[in-house]
Amino acid sequence: MSPKITTELLKQLRQVMKSPKYVQEPVQAYIVPSGDAHQSEYIAPCDCRRAFISGFDGSAGTAIITEQHAAMWTDGRYFLQAAHQMDNNWTLMKMGLKDTPTQEDWLVSVLPEGSKVGVDPFIIPADQWKRMSKALRSAGHDLVPVKENLIDTIWTDCPQRPCKPLITLDLSYTGVSWRDKIVALRSKMAERKVLWFVVTALDEVAWLFNLRGSDVEYNPVFFAYAIIGMNTIRLFIDGDRMMDPAVREHLQLDSTLEPEFKIQVLPYGSIQSELQAVGAGLSPKEKVWLSDKASYALTEAIPKAYRYLTPYTPICIAKAVKNSSETEGMRRAHIKDAVALCELFNWLEKEVVPKGTVTEIIAADKAEEFRSQQKDFVELSFATISSTGPNGAIIHYKPVPETNRTLSVNEIYLLDSGAQYKDGTTDVTRTMHFGTPSAYEKECFTYVLKGHIAVSAAIFPNGTKGHLLDSFARSALWDSGLDYLHGTGHGVGSFLNVHEGPCGISYKTFADEPLEAGMIVSDEPGYYEDGSFGIRIENVVLVIPAETKYNFKNRGSLTFEPLTLVPIQTKMIDVNLLTQKERNWVNDYHQKCREVIGAELERQGRHEALRWLIRETEPLGRVQ
Amino acid sequence: MSPKITTELLKQLRQVMKSPKYVQEPVQAYIVPSGDAHQSEYIAPCDCRRAFISGFDGSAGTAIITEQHAAMWTDGRYFLQAAHQMDNNWTLMKMGLKDTPTQEDWLVSVLPEGSKVGVDPFIIPADQWKRMSKALRSAGHDLVPVKENLIDTIWTDCPQRPCKPLITLDLSYTGVSWRDKIVALRSKMAERKVLWFVVTALDEVAWLFNLRGSDVEYNPVFFAYAIIGMNTIRLFIDGDRMMDPAVREHLQLDSTLEPEFKIQVLPYGSIQSELQAVGAGLSPKEKVWLSDKASYALTEAIPKAYRYLTPYTPICIAKAVKNSSETEGMRRAHIKDAVALCELFNWLEKEVVPKGTVTEIIAADKAEEFRSQQKDFVELSFATISSTGPNGAIIHYKPVPETNRTLSVNEIYLLDSGAQYKDGTTDVTRTMHFGTPSAYEKECFTYVLKGHIAVSAAIFPNGTKGHLLDSFARSALWDSGLDYLHGTGHGVGSFLNVHEGPCGISYKTFADEPLEAGMIVSDEPGYYEDGSFGIRIENVVLVIPAETKYNFKNRGSLTFEPLTLVPIQTKMIDVNLLTQKERNWVNDYHQKCREVIGAELERQGRHEALRWLIRETEPLGRVQ
Repeated sequence: MSPKITTELLKQLRQVMKSPKYVQEPVQAYIVPSGDAHQSEYIAPCDCRRAFISGFDGSAGTAIITEQHAAMWTDGRYFLQAAHQMDNNWTLMKMGLKDTPTQEDWLVSVLPEGSKVGVDPFIIPADQWKRMSKALRSAGHDLVPVKENLIDTIWTDCPQRPCKPLITLDLSYTGVSWRDKIVALRSKMAERKVLWFVVTALDEVAWLFNLRGSDVEYNPVFFAYAIIGMNTIRLFIDGDRMMDPAVREHLQLDSTLEPEFKIQVLPYGSIQSELQAVGAGLSPKEKVWLSDKASYALTEAIPKAYRYLTPYTPICIAKAVKNSSETEGMRRAHIKDAVALCELFNWLEKEVVPKGTVTEIIAADKAEEFRSQQKDFVELSFATISSTGPNGAIIHYKPVPETNRTLSVNEIYLLDSGAQYKDGTTDVTRTMHFGTPSAYEKECFTYVLKGHIAVSAAIFPNGTKGHLLDSFARSALWDSGLDYLHGTGHGVGSFLNVHEGPCGISYKTFADEPLEAGMIVSDEPGYYEDGSFGIRIENVVLVIPAETKYNFKNRGSLTFEPLTLVPIQTKMIDVNLLTQKERNWVNDYHQKCREVIGAELERQGRHEALRWLIRETEPLGRVQ
Repeated sequence: MSPKITTELLKQLRQVMKSPKYVQEPVQAYIVPSGDAHQSEYIAPCDCRRAFISGFDGSAGTAIITEQHAAMWTDGRYFLQAAHQMDNNWTLMKMGLKDTPTQEDWLVSVLPEGSKVGVDPFIIPADQWKRMSKALRSAGHDLVPVKENLIDTIWTDCPQRPCKPLITLDLSYTGVSWRDKIVALRSKMAERKVLWFVVTALDEVAWLFNLRGSDVEYNPVFFAYAIIGMNTIRLFIDGDRMMDPAVREHLQLDSTLEPEFKIQVLPYGSIQSELQAVGAGLSPKEKVWLSDKASYALTEAIPKAYRYLTPYTPICIAKAVKNSSETEGMRRAHIKDAVALCELFNWLEKEVVPKGTVTEIIAADKAEEFRSQQKDFVELSFATISSTGPNGAIIHYKPVPETNRTLSVNEIYLLDSGAQYKDGTTDVTRTMHFGTPSAYEKECFTYVLKGHIAVSAAIFPNGTKGHLLDSFARSALWDSGLDYLHGTGHGVGSFLNVHEGPCGISYKTFADEPLEAGMIVSDEPGYYEDGSFGIRIENVVLVIPAETKYNFKNRGSLTFEPLTLVPIQTKMIDVNLLTQKERNWVNDYHQKCREVIGAELERQGRHEALRWLIRETEPLGRVQ
């Protein structure tokens, strides 16, 4: 990786920062955040403005350019990458280190008195704007919204905003029609006494209308907003996608409908002015509901007294609780995914052991090939983490030619991968050894497995938040002085984003919503030894009611059912470290893999993979 | 309990709410919070203003009186008690129930337009003022500080503010002189670039100056404030306590000292004006450090731009980490406390079983009697919870003549008690059966014990917050569908408040500071069956470094060492439900009780109690 040369670009940006064509008054600093106008985790190429101006293309980072300086804030995952990708026009600000100034403090320390700091009001979330604006104001500066994105003005070969065809999902996939979702949403709105709801997150628009897209890689979403009133529905979307007869039929655009279900289709770019019109027409006590992470531009469109902001929207919460059609779809998707992985691991054993010609990239490609053979496969759900030996210790590793290692019988191999199928989204990690693992590797693997089982088999009362389960995943590692520096689980969408709120399992998450039957999360403890190996065991699990001997305060209990059904390599297990209960869990799990995935392998005529599955699911012995 | 008749009092209060003698303009509502000017958990009789005006004397509750209404907000622990103690002038607002309005919402719904709501600015914490004031302002009303406390104006027989003699603690108890504590505090102030620190919590003043008092029952504190500058120390305290030669000597009031350690003694009531003078003399960038829970009156004394507010003060954090002198003192206090409890339980077995004449109150008194025989006993550390049968299910039960039950061989007895000794503070709960417990009672007791052990034996990395350990205490109960509705542990002071921040073990606590070696917390899971019984097993435990096989990222690990050494009744244990590891824990714990407490019983010549201890610490058998 050689750094991007940015001298000329920065010069151009500093010119437009002063140009009356773009700014009312010159701005002395310009902030370039990571995100898009929907605060998406994954963004389209046209939204990679921070990467364009700096060269640094990690998933998190904020650039600030002043007349004299250019600085980049990013976190520990990306210190090395950012340092490699940026030229020496840039100062790297290592977040999380004690001496690193916050963006606000740094700005205050470098800006001349009474400066203006510009930012694109569509990209910055309202809560960030508020914090930054307050800090700057108290130091005599001003944060100002710059209508035209200044990076776009100098990005001459900026890719077009994608505008790909839509996929309509019928009831057999979604379980609930978009009309019924609107009805449910309006009833939540009535409960909270709000008259309008603004849908800003891309997966929320997609979920609400039972539509999918492919505007963003890995996430089956499309660029759109919506404003839902008690009697009106406005959908803001560009392109000729609304000309597609299937879409028109799905949304009943040409039918005679009750007016409250009539969808008014408007240009994507008109959301702000439409919302301002809504805001201007409000009477006292009439409120507009927005996510508190919505952009400053849209939040500001509604006068402060009329805003109703919450961390999680009613759509986010409803979307997280999967209905039986979605759950069944997720089950089907995970069965297909397991078939693909059995094929892959069988193939790897045949290729790696005798030949030694499989690289991380080849393995990742092969995994995709096997998945793409499955019905309703759409695309991967994230960039495959295919890592062997020391690369496995890099938690967010993605193999590239410069780092690509060859799998061998001497190293641990970690594969974290998943796919989008039309009936569901998968995300699974398995850690394997193709030779003979050391006692230490087995010991670490077994602690991770104990943590995985502790979460998966946990029984907990209804109303429990996921973060209260996080320590269960670490307890066995902690006992030996080990740990891992990431959360234990995230929400998973149903043919939607592989990371979704509002639930999760993490020591860091304090604002998570309680777990409910029907929610789907990952269970993925790990252990990483820098320079040596990485271990992670990840299943996607469904929250289900648990049968218990008693029922305190009639609250009911919950537990998890694994949707992922891929063998966990028993060769890596130090059986002596498992309790009988844990051995039973492994054996029951493998029995289920045999039954469910075995039947599907049989049905698909994949006999060699079936033999591999049978071999890999031999039961562990009893405690002596 | 018959309710207090408040008609006349409310009439008087409503008169002073309009009287120009006390208010600049009439107030249409007056708020009477629970606390005192130091936001203490336990308060002196003169500060029980809410109890005086309403009759309700629970530990938590806020009264609001308007021209037409009188309403009381309290939580689930006190619904019954409040309903009994208040007459029908009062409306009970049950906090935590869905339909209960917040104080702000209720005020907005009942007040005439443009009302003024009064409150004593010394009693309301600044953060509460801010929230309340904002809500009222947005509805067109005003929250106003009323200088004179309006309850005090009608409380003709209000008790005097206590002003009892002080106890000086020498280095053998505190380990660090007050001068060295001032030096450490100033270095924290320098780190944060603040010039002044205001000590508002009573236990923080007591800790800082190595003094104790008895102005508040159970808490060895005294009414005082302090303002620490980089070169000045001002102590605000009333009465002739500063005439005591021992105190003058301890604080070196008559010595020739370096000026920065010279203590200026000022009247308790002059804190606000002194602080205003400090505030008026500040230059830009000079800051004053206050707890964000300090009163509105003191917070407001410093102009906003000069305030530096944190949830935990540097004193609160330093106080929580006990040094070796404090730890040794706590050990001694717990040994004496265990001696007293061995005597008590031995006595109970002799009295309850054959005679059946011991009531909850008699048992509580006897516990106090045995404790008071021990060296350096000062007082109890909280009101003894002595409860048998169904009373045990009332978590904050305190026996009174109306509820007083007789201990018997048919019911579970729960005793939660503790004391202040000059060398340390204790807090211990034991649950016993004097006859034959049922299988179900044993089962529940054993789940609670498993939870207690899971926390006590937990190993976790340095930097872990206590709330991440809470679920360990519940896991065994959860597996059977059971739970308890309180936190698992609280910080414990060293001859100071039995509840102290900033650490704890709770599913509710998100703002706790990480556990550190030297911190002391309680470990007290329980199980409560309404109308039947209560079970709780509580030890006070010290955070200590743990030896582990590995040491991830060189972070080091921690675990707990029980300071409480009182047998856990093995008769209540269903041994079959314990793992071998758990049995070993019980046996090791009992072995230590035998050794340490046995030696002390021997030394004190308490041979009968020693025989009881030996009997109660017989080892459990091995897993078959």
